[in-house]
Amino acid sequence: MATLSLRSPPSSLLYHHHNAPTCLILRSPYLNLRSRAHKPLSIKAFSAPSLTQDDLKKLAADKAVEYIRSGMILGLGTGSTAAFVVDKLGALLKPPPSASPSPPSTTTPKLDLAIDGADEVDPNLDLVKGRGGALLREKMVEAASDKFVVVVDDSKLVSGLGGSGLAMPVEVVQFCWKYNLIRLGELFREDSCVAKLRLGDGDKPYVTDNMNYIVDLYFEKPIRDSEAAGREISALEGVVEHGLFLNMATAVLIAGKDGVTVKNK
Amino acid sequence: MATLSLRSPPSSLLYHHHNAPTCLILRSPYLNLRSRAHKPLSIKAFSAPSLTQDDLKKLAADKAVEYIRSGMILGLGTGSTAAFVVDKLGALLKPPPSASPSPPSTTTPKLDLAIDGADEVDPNLDLVKGRGGALLREKMVEAASDKFVVVVDDSKLVSGLGGSGLAMPVEVVQFCWKYNLIRLGELFREDSCVAKLRLGDGDKPYVTDNMNYIVDLYFEKPIRDSEAAGREISALEGVVEHGLFLNMATAVLIAGKDGVTVKNK
Repeated sequence: MATLSLRSPPSSLLYHHHNAPTCLILRSPYLNLRSRAHKPLSIKAFSAPSLTQDDLKKLAADKAVEYIRSGMILGLGTGSTAAFVVDKLGALLKPPPSASPSPPSTTTPKLDLAIDGADEVDPNLDLVKGRGGALLREKMVEAASDKFVVVVDDSKLVSGLGGSGLAMPVEVVQFCWKYNLIRLGELFREDSCVAKLRLGDGDKPYVTDNMNYIVDLYFEKPIRDSEAAGREISALEGVVEHGLFLNMATAVLIAGKDGVTVKNK
Repeated sequence: MATLSLRSPPSSLLYHHHNAPTCLILRSPYLNLRSRAHKPLSIKAFSAPSLTQDDLKKLAADKAVEYIRSGMILGLGTGSTAAFVVDKLGALLKPPPSASPSPPSTTTPKLDLAIDGADEVDPNLDLVKGRGGALLREKMVEAASDKFVVVVDDSKLVSGLGGSGLAMPVEVVQFCWKYNLIRLGELFREDSCVAKLRLGDGDKPYVTDNMNYIVDLYFEKPIRDSEAAGREISALEGVVEHGLFLNMATAVLIAGKDGVTVKNK
């Protein structure tokens, strides 16, 4: 019988949030995927003209599911693209699986594969993530995975991280958040960076799933040295995590009007 | 008139916790301290035989107050030694000051002086702090201070950090805490380090003032390279802060049976 074991992340999940990443253990003889290993995938396009952005995400998500093998422990992110992955996975698992919760693992904190979307992808396959607010948990799940497959449409491609002009999020503790907002802005003063507290409902600060705030950094130009930027942001006391996901992606699946392109690290 | 302005830390303090560090603005013409600058203090002992540990702490705290000048913005830590500093400061400010809250500063996140205790002090004046649980906030306040004066009794001196065999705390997010506990233990496997979740009331996990957990690391031998240790701990996703306070102390006041010794950086 097909089983899809829903389980908490690598160890105990002590409180749950609506947009927390999910981990799955997949044990399904019904999963009908290509039998060849997914490792040697090369850049390849599949024709798909006149598609909406959602169609493109769905295309890339379908392709991402090909990385999944029966028996794997999976990490799945949040957001619309990850939702398409779950949909596709559910469809492939018909007849409907019995979902039985597994106890949290304390001895094997490794996942086989994580699949998630991204807000920006640069030519080095480094990412900006976290505009949805779940950057810390996603980073923990994806760092704990042997492989991390990213699923995006081609609007997310940038020449350098921060280059979209949209938010690069930094999760900070609530205590002295304004002090850290000022320090973060000063760190990138030469890049004309603007730091803003993320607001949620009713102009109150947005609170993350870990009870922290988010300072969003807006860059005029791409970050020149994202490794150094990540290091310097992390070194600030009170910074919990940042949205630069560096040297983490194994492969990026990019859906565009000409189909899905696969880029491997 | 003497005024002692109690104000929140460098920026907004959004929720208050009983053991959060405090910031003060001191404006008191009555503060009767030695008029000479405190900078050139050298190692010096004041005789004080047959004293209890509390007496020793009080001695050191009295000495620490000599670093304070009228008009300074102060950061005061938590714990018993810091409490003696506040007592002494209060006594010096008689006639009783009128305490008026100041608005949080958003433009001047710098403090003049922080005074706090420590759990361990090594010969390089590097510290272990946080056994009381307030490591993150204390580190933020002390990193934001021009000077940081540490007040201890001589039982806190170690040849190397971790050398007391007592807890070196690491604040971690609740999410996947067990995963991080395992990773922290593995990081120092060669040092026979034991990692334990700190418990609070009724064997429930201790929750910090930032809603995180604490993993306490117990070392058999002192940490060999505390700079590297701090860097590697900080690099783990989900680690919020650690109790190694490196290159932060300006001076350490050590009370022992022979009096108070002052060590400057």
